[in-house]
Amino acid sequence: MESTVADNAGAPEDARWMRLALRLARRSWGRTSPNPMVGAVVVRDGLEAGRGRHRVAGGPHAEPAALAAAGDLARGATLYVTLEPCSTHGRTPPCTEAILAAGIRRVVIGGLDPNPKHAGRGAELLRRNGIEVRVGVLQAACERLNEAFFHWIVTGRPFVILKMAMTLDGKIATASGASRWITGEQARRDVQRLRQWADAIMVGAETVRRDDPELTVRTPRNWPRQPRKLVWSRRGALPRNYRIWQDPGNPPEFVTLRHSAAWLDFLGSLGSQDVTALLLEGGGELAGAALRAGAVNEIVFYVAPKILGGRGSRPVVGGPDPDTLAAALVLRDVTVKRLGDDLRVCGYVPN
Amino acid sequence: MESTVADNAGAPEDARWMRLALRLARRSWGRTSPNPMVGAVVVRDGLEAGRGRHRVAGGPHAEPAALAAAGDLARGATLYVTLEPCSTHGRTPPCTEAILAAGIRRVVIGGLDPNPKHAGRGAELLRRNGIEVRVGVLQAACERLNEAFFHWIVTGRPFVILKMAMTLDGKIATASGASRWITGEQARRDVQRLRQWADAIMVGAETVRRDDPELTVRTPRNWPRQPRKLVWSRRGALPRNYRIWQDPGNPPEFVTLRHSAAWLDFLGSLGSQDVTALLLEGGGELAGAALRAGAVNEIVFYVAPKILGGRGSRPVVGGPDPDTLAAALVLRDVTVKRLGDDLRVCGYVPN
Repeated sequence: MESTVADNAGAPEDARWMRLALRLARRSWGRTSPNPMVGAVVVRDGLEAGRGRHRVAGGPHAEPAALAAAGDLARGATLYVTLEPCSTHGRTPPCTEAILAAGIRRVVIGGLDPNPKHAGRGAELLRRNGIEVRVGVLQAACERLNEAFFHWIVTGRPFVILKMAMTLDGKIATASGASRWITGEQARRDVQRLRQWADAIMVGAETVRRDDPELTVRTPRNWPRQPRKLVWSRRGALPRNYRIWQDPGNPPEFVTLRHSAAWLDFLGSLGSQDVTALLLEGGGELAGAALRAGAVNEIVFYVAPKILGGRGSRPVVGGPDPDTLAAALVLRDVTVKRLGDDLRVCGYVPN
Repeated sequence: MESTVADNAGAPEDARWMRLALRLARRSWGRTSPNPMVGAVVVRDGLEAGRGRHRVAGGPHAEPAALAAAGDLARGATLYVTLEPCSTHGRTPPCTEAILAAGIRRVVIGGLDPNPKHAGRGAELLRRNGIEVRVGVLQAACERLNEAFFHWIVTGRPFVILKMAMTLDGKIATASGASRWITGEQARRDVQRLRQWADAIMVGAETVRRDDPELTVRTPRNWPRQPRKLVWSRRGALPRNYRIWQDPGNPPEFVTLRHSAAWLDFLGSLGSQDVTALLLEGGGELAGAALRAGAVNEIVFYVAPKILGGRGSRPVVGGPDPDTLAAALVLRDVTVKRLGDDLRVCGYVPN
């Protein structure tokens, strides 16, 4: 990686083409797990010669797809790819071979392979074969897109997002349990994006009892894969009359997790089952338990500009009471976005 | 007011000079109560000839101050003023007289007098005396600056801001009562601006017991006026060992307010004592009671990007539990601003 800084001194049009490659990668949002989303563009004499993306795990990688689209134009061209090309045999032959065979002259890479065993090897192999390689163009955005995949590769555990919908005064439901709908349509559409991303969704049993959610991806219609449905329930399975049972091909799984220490082991076992992205959707007790256990990587809170008030209304994050303010989790890299009337606040949880 | 739209078709430099007048008015932030903040600029041949502002209740108005600064240059000049000049005798002679005496040719006004009895009379009097008058330049900003004054003039009650500092999960203290400091320095400096604005500050007795606040303006040093200190206490006065008693010239006042219906009467009596701006600083029970009573005009929530969690931690808005989500207060004109690491969320409470 010592060449990253020098590499960044490359042509400004590199960023432009990498942006296109990123856009292609994003079209595969939620469809490639447990593989990363990757986009690639072949550029010859300043013009696009071919493009490709990884569409689904087991299918062709982005680079061979773009090279195939470019055909003979690939000879002497530049290849832009959001993630370092693989140099090992997996379900498909190594992409480095395809790049060399196509006669590519220059390769521009977004981020390196997150696997410490492989990182930099693809780039190095290309360089050794006389190809000019530039690494680190729009690197942050390229890595951010595959944050879950990167985390899973490095830790063996899924990246965990805690999503909650709340009023400005931190309530997720009335005392009697009413919670539909706190936020508006645009925020709820955004939640569908999170569910597309998720390999599994988890809620507390109490949330199932009160809200009876389906926990499915509803948009777009014909979404090709539904997330696994995990229910945190200290008293085992819930009866069959709840909506989570509706899809016989994807029944809910019930998880006990009595102790906070059990959480990381549980995440490890999900990771070994190729769950790279886990979405926690509440309620407050699940949120509190997962946060205290250090199981959450990022929070996504949808905040409606409403004040509910009340002493008994359910808090967004429950769990045991901390003794001091110093016990509060201080979020990093907080971002705020308006979604209709609502706000979306995202932040990373420090480990 | 039928001429407002036509008036708005005036010269673009009008907005530029009005912006300067507004900036002058803002320098009097918190210093003019129960009068409004007003700024004025005299402009002759495209150049500033004099400026003035209302500095303190009982002192000269902005217009005579600007006219005096301009001297002979005022003859034939344009006067910019953020609020309609008064046409009646108060503690000072009517400003319209001074404007006519100075030989001003044109007057550009931000907002009309909010008092329905006076609105438009100053402008009309000037017009009848051959002066060209334009009304409504940066009107929204001019009126917003004196929102409290306008509200007080129209309703007889102070404009009430509910200010709270909270974690992202809606907690204002740990279960044991620790609340210092949830937010950072920049947010706390912003609170000082609110206290400067306030003619009176109100807190619940429980907040005094737990936090022992001074309820004073601390910045800038030598601030000329301290707000009255009101404590909502169902059991009467609190002992003398609390900091609210420190200033013998400004002792705390204890308010019972057993019923929510008592709130508006109470605000009316404050209004008749020239309290135009009231700041509620918590805790959660006061917030809940005031909101439910319809006593709050605007909320200002400082939100720290922290998660505290816990079932017993104090909610930002307490009070009786609403039965349905429809009982939630939906805020209008919500704005969000970053203050250091914290967010400030402001919104108007519908009546």
